[in-house]
Amino acid sequence: MRDKILEFLKKNNEYTSGDHLAHSLGISRQGLWKHIQELRDSGYDIAAVPHLGYKLISIPDKLFPSEITHGLDTRFIGKKVYYFDKVTSTMDVAMQWVTKGANEGTIVIAETQIKGRGRLGRQWLSPRYKGIYLSLILKPRVAPAQASIFTLLAAVSICEAVKDEIGLDVQIKWPNDILIRNKKFCGILTEMDAETDEIKFLVIGLGLNVNNDRGELLAGATSLKEERKEKVNRITLLQAILRRIEKNYLLFQKEGPEVITQKWREYNITLGKRVRITYRHKHLEGQSVDIDQDGALLIRNSSGLIQKVTSGDVT
Amino acid sequence: MRDKILEFLKKNNEYTSGDHLAHSLGISRQGLWKHIQELRDSGYDIAAVPHLGYKLISIPDKLFPSEITHGLDTRFIGKKVYYFDKVTSTMDVAMQWVTKGANEGTIVIAETQIKGRGRLGRQWLSPRYKGIYLSLILKPRVAPAQASIFTLLAAVSICEAVKDEIGLDVQIKWPNDILIRNKKFCGILTEMDAETDEIKFLVIGLGLNVNNDRGELLAGATSLKEERKEKVNRITLLQAILRRIEKNYLLFQKEGPEVITQKWREYNITLGKRVRITYRHKHLEGQSVDIDQDGALLIRNSSGLIQKVTSGDVT
Repeated sequence: MRDKILEFLKKNNEYTSGDHLAHSLGISRQGLWKHIQELRDSGYDIAAVPHLGYKLISIPDKLFPSEITHGLDTRFIGKKVYYFDKVTSTMDVAMQWVTKGANEGTIVIAETQIKGRGRLGRQWLSPRYKGIYLSLILKPRVAPAQASIFTLLAAVSICEAVKDEIGLDVQIKWPNDILIRNKKFCGILTEMDAETDEIKFLVIGLGLNVNNDRGELLAGATSLKEERKEKVNRITLLQAILRRIEKNYLLFQKEGPEVITQKWREYNITLGKRVRITYRHKHLEGQSVDIDQDGALLIRNSSGLIQKVTSGDVT
Repeated sequence: MRDKILEFLKKNNEYTSGDHLAHSLGISRQGLWKHIQELRDSGYDIAAVPHLGYKLISIPDKLFPSEITHGLDTRFIGKKVYYFDKVTSTMDVAMQWVTKGANEGTIVIAETQIKGRGRLGRQWLSPRYKGIYLSLILKPRVAPAQASIFTLLAAVSICEAVKDEIGLDVQIKWPNDILIRNKKFCGILTEMDAETDEIKFLVIGLGLNVNNDRGELLAGATSLKEERKEKVNRITLLQAILRRIEKNYLLFQKEGPEVITQKWREYNITLGKRVRITYRHKHLEGQSVDIDQDGALLIRNSSGLIQKVTSGDVT
């Protein structure tokens, strides 16, 4: 009912009489008033003027499912939203939901995470109401070795959305960091449950610093607000990201991984450079040549040999 | 206390007086009697003769944890056993325990499975008290693409155990079927939870037809009893398998995957043949040349090109 009232008020830019509203929705004036109060408690600013009725003045700066799905013209990505004010990690919650049968495209979103995590168990800072902390469930029929392509797919989608919606120039550092002016504002983490033959499901975690102020950022990190010098509408950005993820996912399914790696190459700042890869106290140095169909980095060492790297940090 | 009483009776081949037994274990005669009754209810045949005392005549044909761990000289494989008379699937149970923090080497075993499963969601028949249905938790630090090596490791370990303990000739059909005289008696299923960089844990499922009679086997399948024409002690076989898995796992950690693939080649019947690989309605034909470090099959097609195959069925 709350969603229906909001829908009604959003369509009408003018004051709507309580009688008309209650009648249209088939509820009592008293019931309507209760729902309006609840919406106000959630942060919706709804004006109530005698003889005129109700008008929606502003919506709160929260990632409510009804706001995310409102006007989201995707087929399956983000059609089902689990929203939490606070979770340990959206990854954990998504893992739980998917084992209970959550559909492909389901997202889990939280305003803050107590134990937000990045690759290899690293911490991800999640200041409340400032970022987008999201986990997306996908069920592609691919082998575990091909899972990295979805990290690239998500990275490309975020680059496209940030470029188109906010007008900032973004770069991807292999495998999963998205940067503006060499500072990280977004990380991507892909986890899976798989047989050796085939993935059962993937959960892709996105952490974006959106409206973080300087004091809410780690060294070397930035936020979209810091770079744009203006607050960003998280809902609009999130919808843009979800739309592009779906578009790229459908493209992948139709045309294969090359269409994703090709897009990825356009945004990347890793290829064509001398790099040093660190992974669990092991090092590898060489010329970063390309990525392959599985999203692995190809490194040419000093003797000309090409090595395939699937894990590690690039410097 | 039950385990202590059993330990005591197993050490003593003669009758042990109730007084002596109760005194040694620090319990009352009445308490001892209660435990003896419980052991009898579980299937232990314990003789009780006035003036002589108790004697263990036979142990039941069940995979009780105390029987599995009794005399099992491994460091970590099989040191912790979760035993069930009936489960949906030992894979599901192991997955639950590992997310609750179960250690590497923990095994889940059941006398029967309602929904025992094989690769790609296929059914595995689990007649009660006839087979070994087991899931083993491992936590190697490898990338998801390398997970298949543990399927090979388990296959090799089972081959070694069956050959040494039962004296039957066994062969492996890529990727995970173990055969005697071209009939399958064992399947292996490896599932994982992973980041794209690294595995968090693996669960290796083993299903062995041990004492199945002809009527308890699918077409094309066999059991060790059918082949040997004699019942097999499941406990002894299971211990032999666990011992060899640990040995091969430690070898892998020290020397890398080649030591496993080399052993695998000795038992395999897939390499060097013309094969047809089927995977989700796609087909691939060619000469099966070798397996690589990740356990993938290398196929040379008619134009001489070598293709790497990670999933599928071989005919």
